[in-house]
Amino acid sequence: MGKVHVSAFGISLDGFSAGPNQSLEHPLGANGTDMMEWFFPTKTFIEQHGGEGGETGIDDDFAAKSMTGNGAWILGRNMFGPVRGPWPDDTWKGWWGDEPPYHVPTFVLTHHPRDPVEMKGGTTFYFVTDGIHSALEQAKQAAGEKDIRVGGGPATVRQYLKERLVDELHLAMRPIFLGKGETIFEGLDLRELGYKVEETVPGERATHLIVRKQN
Amino acid sequence: MGKVHVSAFGISLDGFSAGPNQSLEHPLGANGTDMMEWFFPTKTFIEQHGGEGGETGIDDDFAAKSMTGNGAWILGRNMFGPVRGPWPDDTWKGWWGDEPPYHVPTFVLTHHPRDPVEMKGGTTFYFVTDGIHSALEQAKQAAGEKDIRVGGGPATVRQYLKERLVDELHLAMRPIFLGKGETIFEGLDLRELGYKVEETVPGERATHLIVRKQN
Repeated sequence: MGKVHVSAFGISLDGFSAGPNQSLEHPLGANGTDMMEWFFPTKTFIEQHGGEGGETGIDDDFAAKSMTGNGAWILGRNMFGPVRGPWPDDTWKGWWGDEPPYHVPTFVLTHHPRDPVEMKGGTTFYFVTDGIHSALEQAKQAAGEKDIRVGGGPATVRQYLKERLVDELHLAMRPIFLGKGETIFEGLDLRELGYKVEETVPGERATHLIVRKQN
Repeated sequence: MGKVHVSAFGISLDGFSAGPNQSLEHPLGANGTDMMEWFFPTKTFIEQHGGEGGETGIDDDFAAKSMTGNGAWILGRNMFGPVRGPWPDDTWKGWWGDEPPYHVPTFVLTHHPRDPVEMKGGTTFYFVTDGIHSALEQAKQAAGEKDIRVGGGPATVRQYLKERLVDELHLAMRPIFLGKGETIFEGLDLRELGYKVEETVPGERATHLIVRKQN
């Protein structure tokens, strides 16, 4: 069986992984894009979005690796979109246009039922209303031997870490302050939960930290 | 005039700068020494404590720089010792033995008056009961053209940052989790306060981040 991982997950030096006040214009919250400025210039990101060129190097190696080998994704509702409460209709299909970058079954945590949405390029969004364990089970079925990537946001990552369900966590620490927003660390004692930083790799625009669950 | 700086200040990946439950046996709180494990092997630290040898390299360069050019230090009460409340007597003279590593006038923030204590090697501890601004003024008088180092702990650093009184902050980020303890970031919006990370330097056992106040 593949691993459950969180990858290419941006954090600021002061520990935030999303700015406050998410909106249609600011999917990562206020100033949240600063946290991903290591990712946007990479060849991986640019080609994902239909462009050409982009930088190669350490940051790009991590970006590429994060997209490889995934048989299923799990996303929190807020990572899927800015809509809150019951789904008013089927209009919202994610931030990513007709062809999302997932290309595999993608399970969206929500309290509000909705029919699956099939997108171009292999991504189907399934809406899971019975919690993180159920979503993980469904993702495992879908992924087979491949990995499962928990995409985010911070609240979703925190829930999976709290239950020790994440095998590997790759953080990309940007040398910036966000000052406010959402963090994956709040209320979480990763030391006590048995997580350990095993590698530190300085990249072009971020410091990459590989955290693994100890047995 | 010299600058006001915080240097060689350890933080864990999850943002803590001291473990919980400080005591005589654990000056940095539970597991707090993990945060300084980049500093202990350096030539600077070992020679400071009367030893010989020790490692040179990037971590040691930062350690050495942090000890150079300081005309005065400011310490919080908890960095000075584990004694709380009114001073029972003059027995406690810091964690550092007869000859503390400061060698200059050192101002200790406290709510409880006490006469100055002169130590070997040039360190005199002055006890300041009228707040952080007063301590800084006294330190400036003592330092002349030299720098003023705010040593810690986290609560003291946070107070000086909050008032934008720190010009430069050097954090040594260790790839560890503390899980709980004291942080310099809590309740502090360093972005809004105008602080910016200007340099990231990977060392042997820590990632060094240089933060400067913008005008």
